[in-house]
Amino acid sequence: MASKKSRKELDTTKSLSNKFEGSFYPQKVVLDTSLFVNPDVRKSFGDTPTEALEAFLFLAAQIHILEFYMPPSIFEELLHFVEKDKISEDLLLILHQKPPKKHELKCPAFLLYELIEDIRERVNKGLRIAEKAVRSVETKSPDEIIQDLRRKYREALREGIIDSKEDVDILLLAMELDALLITADQGLIKWAEKLGIKWLFPEKFKNYLLGAIKRSCLLTGKSK
Amino acid sequence: MASKKSRKELDTTKSLSNKFEGSFYPQKVVLDTSLFVNPDVRKSFGDTPTEALEAFLFLAAQIHILEFYMPPSIFEELLHFVEKDKISEDLLLILHQKPPKKHELKCPAFLLYELIEDIRERVNKGLRIAEKAVRSVETKSPDEIIQDLRRKYREALREGIIDSKEDVDILLLAMELDALLITADQGLIKWAEKLGIKWLFPEKFKNYLLGAIKRSCLLTGKSK
Repeated sequence: MASKKSRKELDTTKSLSNKFEGSFYPQKVVLDTSLFVNPDVRKSFGDTPTEALEAFLFLAAQIHILEFYMPPSIFEELLHFVEKDKISEDLLLILHQKPPKKHELKCPAFLLYELIEDIRERVNKGLRIAEKAVRSVETKSPDEIIQDLRRKYREALREGIIDSKEDVDILLLAMELDALLITADQGLIKWAEKLGIKWLFPEKFKNYLLGAIKRSCLLTGKSK
Repeated sequence: MASKKSRKELDTTKSLSNKFEGSFYPQKVVLDTSLFVNPDVRKSFGDTPTEALEAFLFLAAQIHILEFYMPPSIFEELLHFVEKDKISEDLLLILHQKPPKKHELKCPAFLLYELIEDIRERVNKGLRIAEKAVRSVETKSPDEIIQDLRRKYREALREGIIDSKEDVDILLLAMELDALLITADQGLIKWAEKLGIKWLFPEKFKNYLLGAIKRSCLLTGKSK
């Protein structure tokens, strides 16, 4: 198996070095906090957001063919989740913070229809949830009902939708840079699909980085 | 007064005929159903939507310097409100039905921020209304509460927002045609402001038409 692999590697080196002469590298990659914060997604990186971010930085430092970006609004969010003094200063060099050019970018107008149709449905759903809550007063206490109402309402109105400035920031940044978007947020993925933004299944993120390290080594002629 | 007016008219004829040699006429005008359906707005035209539409057509038929447009979706809405057999066939010739080129048009991306911020606030407001409704079960019956809830919820979530396919149709059509938008809908006016779409106070609509008739007469050399 091992010898097979290295033969394959040699073949790839040849074809890759041709490819690399073009100018399509570095590929830009836009990252979302969910990669480090969502426990399911970050588990291949580490047990805590801090560990996961450190593991990412360790890998990313070996990659010369990718550039990593994050909008400042998302970067700020990320810093809330990590122990700042444990994170290497590499962070600021490896993970570029850039807001999108929001006053220059344009988006296709037909998306307005989709956004508004989506909101309309959610708003109606929210009302039905509220009505149900009122009707349930005979069986539960107001406090119980309100707790339940809040959860259901937020789920119905927020899930799978872009619902914050940060969401728009990340989508527009990926659009502007023609970057690969990596996120675990289903709302963002749905919108990446609409906008033609490249995106990667978040659970493949680590493999993607490992692949990029390998390619970086091939490119610079160093063996791993 | 009468002689003063006609002297003024003669002066204007001169300067207007110069102006009219340019090619900025006909000005395109996009109309909303609210002009005929909203009682406050239509009152200068007629007591019912049918009367108001007929009065509009009577005036519009004398105008050569304006072209009137409506998206088919809005036109269909309008037909629900009028007695179709009482409306002159001129309607189809005078009021052009055109959908916007929704797959060609682009809108500035920063509007996404405003739309999403707006929705976010409304969604939160909707939840507060629902919570209040649940808390009021001790003083009112569920049926009363729900009736009240529906009204307040719809008001909070829909007023002053573009919330339907028809709203987007009319805005995009006005954008595409570089037309003057005439509507009594505050949500549409708010968005016309954001998009740089020309708009007119709806209560000035009749005077605008009367002014256009006068100009049309001056242009064609006929006195009114």
